[in-house]
Amino acid sequence: MITTTPLSDLTGLYARVQQFYAQQMHALDGGDFAQYAATFTPDGEFSHTPGRPPARTREGIAAELHAFHEQRFGNDPVRRRHWFNMIRLAPGEDGTIRSTFYVLVVTSRPGVREPEIAPSCVVHDVLVEEGGELFNRSRRVDHDYLGIG
Amino acid sequence: MITTTPLSDLTGLYARVQQFYAQQMHALDGGDFAQYAATFTPDGEFSHTPGRPPARTREGIAAELHAFHEQRFGNDPVRRRHWFNMIRLAPGEDGTIRSTFYVLVVTSRPGVREPEIAPSCVVHDVLVEEGGELFNRSRRVDHDYLGIG
Amino acid sequence: MITTTPLSDLTGLYARVQQFYAQQMHALDGGDFAQYAATFTPDGEFSHTPGRPPARTREGIAAELHAFHEQRFGNDPVRRRHWFNMIRLAPGEDGTIRSTFYVLVVTSRPGVREPEIAPSCVVHDVLVEEGGELFNRSRRVDHDYLGIG
Repeated sequence: MITTTPLSDLTGLYARVQQFYAQQMHALDGGDFAQYAATFTPDGEFSHTPGRPPARTREGIAAELHAFHEQRFGNDPVRRRHWFNMIRLAPGEDGTIRSTFYVLVVTSRPGVREPEIAPSCVVHDVLVEEGGELFNRSRRVDHDYLGIG
Repeated sequence: MITTTPLSDLTGLYARVQQFYAQQMHALDGGDFAQYAATFTPDGEFSHTPGRPPARTREGIAAELHAFHEQRFGNDPVRRRHWFNMIRLAPGEDGTIRSTFYVLVVTSRPGVREPEIAPSCVVHDVLVEEGGELFNRSRRVDHDYLGIG
Repeated sequence: MITTTPLSDLTGLYARVQQFYAQQMHALDGGDFAQYAATFTPDGEFSHTPGRPPARTREGIAAELHAFHEQRFGNDPVRRRHWFNMIRLAPGEDGTIRSTFYVLVVTSRPGVREPEIAPSCVVHDVLVEEGGELFNRSRRVDHDYLGIG
């Protein structure tokens, strides 16, 4: 049997998390790295790519994203969309919420109708609620094509 | 900071919008253009492809879809599936709900296991509730590969 | 007009079904076929591929999955992720819930950044609630590329 949190407790939370992720990733995909970083707690930790050390604090996360995008895309005029799916929530007794879900990154380029859809990832979040708002305390991204074999 | 609607108000609405979109797009993908058009308000407006004027009224939307599919696919026996994701809702004080989300169109053809997945879009809806039902007052589709550069 | 179940009744259910599907498919994609099978009722029926007879009972479903994966993937070190979307729920008067949704299977292989995304399917579930938990009474998978023409 799968051990489940009482699902009644999840009803409201599930929708809130989906809305939170939509706001968060619309910000990132819109290029607003500061706004993305502000969805983390002040001491938040973000580990998005294997081999790169995790970024810490909002300032650190925003700086890391600026550096990563400059290095990775430079003058390549990409439009990226992060898709989250199959979100599994596990509220803990300490008030944190572990959230595990699938991700695909959809990358479009001018004039090319078919986007690149890669890589496939699994993300492990720890979420907290403060003042009625959700925040990421941490996020770790595992890449499927790197984690096998 | 991201400005958010009080999330408690969104809990029920979020699930309703997801169910509404599923019903709406199952109708469209099933080829029932009249049923799709009936998910718009009588004066609804639908702008789905850049360079084509928006369709208006349910009759106009159904007619536009018939014309578009005939022109675009003709005898090509496609099976299309519209995927919506990362839905961000912003209820307004006037009772309308702005909904912004990502879309991918998945197109299968007989005997070809791997579907085409294109284009990547962002959709901007204005939804209203009438008699306990949701309707699109308007929908505008932006295509990622056309909007860059 | 689309006939809808009173949407107020769906609010809590919709989130519960999403969480249930996430738990169920994380189990399957993690290779835990027994845990996947345990999300079906004891007399559950699972029909996942055209031309193969449906599997029945939890033991039968787990055995079918072992056989299918061995035959299909053998020593091919794939990492698969099942994506569900556009879930449409229709609670019935008998307490069952019909659930119809879209599926894409995302398959990654070691060192290959771009996953295969195929096939596109539509799944028809009958869900029941027992002891506060959801279970599949049945699941039938239709493949888009096989069902046309």
